[in-house]
Amino acid sequence: MSLLAVGTVAFDDIETPFGRAEKVVGGAATYITLAASYFTDHLKIVSVIGDDFPQQELDFMASRGIDLDGLQVKEGEKSFFWAGKYHDNLNDRDTLDTQLNVLADFKPVLPDNYKDAEYLMLGNLTPSVQSEVIDQLNNRPKFIALDTMNFWMDTAMESLLQVLKKIDGLIINDEEARQLSGEHSLVKAAEVIHGMGPKHLVIKKGEHGALLFEGGKVFFAPALPLAEVFDPTGAGDTFAGGFMGYIARTGDLSFENMKRAVIYGSAMASFCVEKFGIERMKELNNKAINKRIARFVDLVNFDADIEL
Amino acid sequence: MSLLAVGTVAFDDIETPFGRAEKVVGGAATYITLAASYFTDHLKIVSVIGDDFPQQELDFMASRGIDLDGLQVKEGEKSFFWAGKYHDNLNDRDTLDTQLNVLADFKPVLPDNYKDAEYLMLGNLTPSVQSEVIDQLNNRPKFIALDTMNFWMDTAMESLLQVLKKIDGLIINDEEARQLSGEHSLVKAAEVIHGMGPKHLVIKKGEHGALLFEGGKVFFAPALPLAEVFDPTGAGDTFAGGFMGYIARTGDLSFENMKRAVIYGSAMASFCVEKFGIERMKELNNKAINKRIARFVDLVNFDADIEL
Repeated sequence: MSLLAVGTVAFDDIETPFGRAEKVVGGAATYITLAASYFTDHLKIVSVIGDDFPQQELDFMASRGIDLDGLQVKEGEKSFFWAGKYHDNLNDRDTLDTQLNVLADFKPVLPDNYKDAEYLMLGNLTPSVQSEVIDQLNNRPKFIALDTMNFWMDTAMESLLQVLKKIDGLIINDEEARQLSGEHSLVKAAEVIHGMGPKHLVIKKGEHGALLFEGGKVFFAPALPLAEVFDPTGAGDTFAGGFMGYIARTGDLSFENMKRAVIYGSAMASFCVEKFGIERMKELNNKAINKRIARFVDLVNFDADIEL
Repeated sequence: MSLLAVGTVAFDDIETPFGRAEKVVGGAATYITLAASYFTDHLKIVSVIGDDFPQQELDFMASRGIDLDGLQVKEGEKSFFWAGKYHDNLNDRDTLDTQLNVLADFKPVLPDNYKDAEYLMLGNLTPSVQSEVIDQLNNRPKFIALDTMNFWMDTAMESLLQVLKKIDGLIINDEEARQLSGEHSLVKAAEVIHGMGPKHLVIKKGEHGALLFEGGKVFFAPALPLAEVFDPTGAGDTFAGGFMGYIARTGDLSFENMKRAVIYGSAMASFCVEKFGIERMKELNNKAINKRIARFVDLVNFDADIEL
């Protein structure tokens, strides 16, 4: 079933303890759609780039089944650019440079054939832009998920609260959940955030896994313990892409299936960090993904041996 | 089967965001044996206290089946005392006061009926004292587990490395594993630590769960997401007590059973933090423990739906 992804398509300069990569392809919508492309062929993207974006990268995205009709190309302008350097622990990073470029005055415009999307993933962007996408749809999608960040809580909280009322699932990290809710306990944070609108909440904890909350229910997905993490860039967006891709493929919104979607998202993220940028995400296949899922099963599986 | 626990029996002053408690009963061996007492009746303790320790607390320990013959009482001296204050996040804490008192010149002496213990849990103490306990045993126990801390890595690394060669399982937290191994990745840290002696390694990550490593195998146990954590004091020792208590009860050293032991340890720790000090650990029963284990099953259980 069709999945529409909205977010940045960009260039990144990345420095980690393992090396540097300059002007590699990145952006939330890039990671989201690439991850989702292993689950569904009906992918559409809404974003904006400058005329500096390599045609071969666009061709590659098209080859993965991603419809680029909603990708605006601004002649004479530059694509969004981010540069960051990771600390030795790979959890913390410093942003060295951010150049909005084409993103500064981005107005999303949905082609007509996008307006009946069944599933919508709103990558991290200005909350008002996320709202504008929802408002252009002909019908309410079956499931709308949204990512955001602390910066919008600091600078655009009112419009963030507005868009939260329109969505089904919020996918954020633990620090963002704490800031948004004002609660340190993630269980209490989930209650507060449910009250803001989203019935489903995924809290990503990086190397510590992810939690799924729905009503009073909770599910925990571990992160795969890895000997080497080369580059965490895009792991969160890749998680979201795997999660929404799996939901779009199955069309099943039960809690049981959401749990699987969190595991598939975690598995895709565990691939993403193994190489720089989107490199690892280009070379996957179903067999590799299923083998990775089996490792998640092994990791947490135990026979409880209790009598109740 | 018999479990011998070695460690402090002490008083704690505890301050958390939820309140203060003064001169409450604490200490590693106290938490270890209390937790283990829900799994086995054959419990022995080696420790030292002053004449300031309340008889009713000793009577309570005896009522839980804990043999106190190895608990030295030093007339005219004071018990070990620790005072700490937790930060709002409950993960970080400042030590406000440490008074070694009777611990300053503690020489463990094993009563004869302790020398055939089948399972041994060496709580966090000077590594040379931990070694002295092993050396007094008539026979090599079936499983020796050890806890330690950064302080001994800084001040007594040589004797710590000596005792590590004599044990089967090391139970430490993530920061300790990183310092001991010099590796940031816990997967790599596990390889290095296996090379120091312990075939089994449990890395506790507090609210982020625990990892069990054995050879190339790895198992992850989540921590239960809790709305309120009142007091984390003793959670690590309670984990160790639940872990070793379950192993002593089952006498099964297979990886499958070690996984269950990690879950039981995690479940006991999840109780411990619900009240101040040892309060919650005094009032448990098998039904409550089994219900808690069932929540761990629910928390990570999913149907993978893959074809390999």
